[in-house]
Amino acid sequence: MPLTIEVCLTPKLINQHVLQGKIAIVVDIFRASSCIITALSENSAAIYPVRTVDECLKLGSQGMLTAGERGGIKIEGFDLGNSPFDYLGKVSGKEIAISTTNGTIALDKSKSADQVIIGSFLNITATLEYLIDQNLPVVIHCAGWRGVPNIEDTLYAGALGHQLNDHGYLAINDTAKMAIDLYHQNMNSLLQTALKSDHAKRLRKFGINKDLDFCLQVNKYQNLNGKLKGSKIVKI
Amino acid sequence: MPLTIEVCLTPKLINQHVLQGKIAIVVDIFRASSCIITALSENSAAIYPVRTVDECLKLGSQGMLTAGERGGIKIEGFDLGNSPFDYLGKVSGKEIAISTTNGTIALDKSKSADQVIIGSFLNITATLEYLIDQNLPVVIHCAGWRGVPNIEDTLYAGALGHQLNDHGYLAINDTAKMAIDLYHQNMNSLLQTALKSDHAKRLRKFGINKDLDFCLQVNKYQNLNGKLKGSKIVKI
Repeated sequence: MPLTIEVCLTPKLINQHVLQGKIAIVVDIFRASSCIITALSENSAAIYPVRTVDECLKLGSQGMLTAGERGGIKIEGFDLGNSPFDYLGKVSGKEIAISTTNGTIALDKSKSADQVIIGSFLNITATLEYLIDQNLPVVIHCAGWRGVPNIEDTLYAGALGHQLNDHGYLAINDTAKMAIDLYHQNMNSLLQTALKSDHAKRLRKFGINKDLDFCLQVNKYQNLNGKLKGSKIVKI
Repeated sequence: MPLTIEVCLTPKLINQHVLQGKIAIVVDIFRASSCIITALSENSAAIYPVRTVDECLKLGSQGMLTAGERGGIKIEGFDLGNSPFDYLGKVSGKEIAISTTNGTIALDKSKSADQVIIGSFLNITATLEYLIDQNLPVVIHCAGWRGVPNIEDTLYAGALGHQLNDHGYLAINDTAKMAIDLYHQNMNSLLQTALKSDHAKRLRKFGINKDLDFCLQVNKYQNLNGKLKGSKIVKI
């Protein structure tokens, strides 16, 4: 039997997937998962995803950097926002507590998987190689936006699904097949397609086009993955 | 402001849409909505969608035809299954109580819309013309399969969305944009694309390829729409 690929477009639907015995790839392209991979490439010691601002502040008082956004905007008093540029040159050796609108929820709801890996365009080939090495079925869990599917996460799911397909994995739910179709149609215009998303439009109002460009860079980082170990994400 | 199109891929996500002031199009291509449109074209007096087998049987005891399936198979003792062929030449002037796995749930969860219309490829242009005439925002509500999105309903949502686009409507959620993309990519191979769906594969095990072919006929029926009025669906 070939290994299987499932795609889930929002945490609201993840309870319809069995995660045990599988690897979950959690995706929040704009911008949590892109920030996490950037922080790891900058040698952050670990990233603690938490759901609330209070939890973040509590970890901050214990010496961690605090990071996060609500509605796309940096939380007042936090050290870092949700722009990958915030993490460049600032996080080496540091632990970070991060709370985001969508990504943290998806991570939390993925914990019954055998492994939880962070998905981003920035290191998609490294993730592909890791998955092939692990030889387990895959569930790509898109964070979406406040419970609804979004284009950019679906596009990533299609991109990873497409590459797994090429390595003999089989897309077994309709959502996976549709995500792969979406990627096929737009593989030569990833950024333009992602910029059509509601979320990108919201973010552009804050003047952060450069963040969107950054997050759509394919394989900026090599040989780097982020993996949830207990309550923290570490580089593997 | 242009009129808007939203697409919802499963009843599990419909609570994220405001339906008041809008027309909901309920879609269950394989096969409830295709059966309902077929029954109306065969001059059924009315169709009563109900959630349970017991409700169906109760209406049956009052003289209605009973119709429905569970897991793709006709319910024992019912007059009609969920094949559109069951309805040909058998339902003129009759009232029908229908309970299906997915379509009935989507109908039930659409009732806060100003109007609820049945969507099928069989009468897609008639539906388009009706919508343009009504001049209201549109939410295309896909029944999916047991809570998860499916290809055939999403494809219909994209087809109708595409045509509404051509008439100045604006796709405002990411799901609508992705569904329209899916349709664009597959508009010349609707049946082949729909046959890739999990649900089609399940149904083919029951030897009902002819049903799938039937449901993918575009504009078999003209000038015919199905509309929910109170607890029944009637021809308009």
